[in-house]
Amino acid sequence: MPAEFSFRLLARDGAARLGEIETPHGAVRTPAFMPVGTQATVKGMSPDQLRETGADIVLANTYHLMLRPGPERIAALGGLHRFMNWPHAILTDSGGFQVMSLANLRRIDDKGVTFRSHLDGTAYELTPERAIEIQLLLGADVTMQLDECVRLPAPHHDLERAVRLSLAWAERCKRAFEQAPVGRALFGIVQGGDDPELRRLSARTLMEIGFHGYAVGGLAVGEPQDVMLRMIEEVAPILPAERPRYLMGVGTPDDLLAAVACGMDMFDCVLPTRNGRHALAFTRFGPINLKNARHADDARPLDPGSRCAASHDYSRAYLHHLFKANEMLGAMLLTAVNLSYYQELMAGMREAIRDSRFSTFAEETRARWRAGEEAGSLGESDTMR
Amino acid sequence: MPAEFSFRLLARDGAARLGEIETPHGAVRTPAFMPVGTQATVKGMSPDQLRETGADIVLANTYHLMLRPGPERIAALGGLHRFMNWPHAILTDSGGFQVMSLANLRRIDDKGVTFRSHLDGTAYELTPERAIEIQLLLGADVTMQLDECVRLPAPHHDLERAVRLSLAWAERCKRAFEQAPVGRALFGIVQGGDDPELRRLSARTLMEIGFHGYAVGGLAVGEPQDVMLRMIEEVAPILPAERPRYLMGVGTPDDLLAAVACGMDMFDCVLPTRNGRHALAFTRFGPINLKNARHADDARPLDPGSRCAASHDYSRAYLHHLFKANEMLGAMLLTAVNLSYYQELMAGMREAIRDSRFSTFAEETRARWRAGEEAGSLGESDTMR
Repeated sequence: MPAEFSFRLLARDGAARLGEIETPHGAVRTPAFMPVGTQATVKGMSPDQLRETGADIVLANTYHLMLRPGPERIAALGGLHRFMNWPHAILTDSGGFQVMSLANLRRIDDKGVTFRSHLDGTAYELTPERAIEIQLLLGADVTMQLDECVRLPAPHHDLERAVRLSLAWAERCKRAFEQAPVGRALFGIVQGGDDPELRRLSARTLMEIGFHGYAVGGLAVGEPQDVMLRMIEEVAPILPAERPRYLMGVGTPDDLLAAVACGMDMFDCVLPTRNGRHALAFTRFGPINLKNARHADDARPLDPGSRCAASHDYSRAYLHHLFKANEMLGAMLLTAVNLSYYQELMAGMREAIRDSRFSTFAEETRARWRAGEEAGSLGESDTMR
Repeated sequence: MPAEFSFRLLARDGAARLGEIETPHGAVRTPAFMPVGTQATVKGMSPDQLRETGADIVLANTYHLMLRPGPERIAALGGLHRFMNWPHAILTDSGGFQVMSLANLRRIDDKGVTFRSHLDGTAYELTPERAIEIQLLLGADVTMQLDECVRLPAPHHDLERAVRLSLAWAERCKRAFEQAPVGRALFGIVQGGDDPELRRLSARTLMEIGFHGYAVGGLAVGEPQDVMLRMIEEVAPILPAERPRYLMGVGTPDDLLAAVACGMDMFDCVLPTRNGRHALAFTRFGPINLKNARHADDARPLDPGSRCAASHDYSRAYLHHLFKANEMLGAMLLTAVNLSYYQELMAGMREAIRDSRFSTFAEETRARWRAGEEAGSLGESDTMR
């Protein structure tokens, strides 16, 4: 008998929250970072390795899985957990964001989105009802409403139209979700761009509809960090304390510290995995670009204090060599390094909230990034995003 | 204090031999398959994963490491074992074969080979003395003489010239190797193409010079399997029983069965790793091409009877999906599957020799490959090479 979806708030420190989500596939400790497994795999990681980094939950992308291998096929094969051999929690997005950014010839109207696959041009229709159906076929523990995400900056009437459309779709997703098996959760998504009034309107209307959790979408889409934080500060206090809050597509380690301080609980981002594949390591001492020639003779490991094997069992010289030689192992090791660091950062935040020293923890963590481990490493932080 | 290099012959079954090589980095059970770690990494495998497949020893390529990152650099970083985080045995080739196949503008004379790097055009000289120096800098447990390998078919005078040159280089390598630390081994390489007389001449002259082990080179370079086996049958009986025998660059699972039956002890080949990256799995039931559309809905694992996690924890449908979607995990999993299968095959041969049932084992193994697991899988074996 699968467990009900639930969220327990365990502690607060200022606006920062410590909690635990219960899903049919185990607990998710919050604040939680969700590695991105776009095509039913986190690139370069086996599920065992991913679990070892400390991940409780992964995100998979409905758009990609809808095109290939197809949700009906995954359902026939026993669902996404079995398909990707990940027995822990999974969140799927609704597909909307990727349709906007990847698909060709898309047309959006009240009914939904029609588009052509970026793979082979096949025409698809994604309605709120189909978005929920797909996510239920995949068997995700946490499903997301279909929404329209607008890239910033955007004219006010575009933001307003997207909010109105997303709210209408939220209602339809809620209805479609009534057929969901017990234990599954559906999150609404707050839109409104950089307009505080639209953000509040969006949040309040979603709460009237009622969801298991609330996401803040349409951020980290080109706006400065302070705009992102201002929007969160508008929205978070409105959202019900007893529901998890998910900031979509965020972010850098610094974004995570800042957003947790504002009361957000869940995050996903491709930065640790994508940057890892491009030789950028996230460490306690800030980012380190291993393509840099200064690492060629450096016998030191990335961070002997990390609990990640990839951080202490290999020299920087070797990691540098792997990237110069285009060897897969470079991407594999730095993906592990980065995901481990992200999880270590989340674990540190959770512990700090529990001990009521979150702001000290955040300050010390940032000071260590700024100081780096040696003169000159600071300039690299520009390459982080 | 590092152990002396030694070889113990533990059992014989016909010409097939069970043995154990002792190196400063642990024992190598023979018959042994050595995965290829060209650039100081077996593509797509961490050293831990590689060890789990059952590998006692890996091969690294002198040519590649000479160009990048450079043997002096690896030596300064503590040697190849530490560099690639592989504490077990390593064999390096001499670089000669890759110079012939990869480098540009090569010129070969009595002194050695001059060539330009295929990476950046830098000019290099590889003499027998430098080939040994590089391998000693890398810290390989087993080093190989520099030789000239001729692609078959070739005119007799080319074969003869290559044998004469390789024997002269063998002598110089032996002298250069006198400075090697205790425990290191040097192997001579029998050349002679498809000419039995040249092969015997080469083997006898190498034995007069005296080596820790004897390799048979210049095979698996385009000739049919029966030519390869005929050459081994000419050479193996001449070689001293108390020294290991290494068949270079071989081969398919069937080649390994056949060559062990002829008395060869060590093998290396890129087939399991390269084919794994191209979606071809080696299994007890023969090769399976996972790009084939018939796997798209197949919930069965590759081989539930394998002790390799990648063979039983993932469906064929998932592996098919990973390759269709160009996901790294596909190459990672099939590399593990194939290297595990190769090691399982070697372990099976070792057990069979010990129990004096090698020919039965070989027969049964081939029968299983031929039968496949279902009608229709047989046709795929053509894609193996």
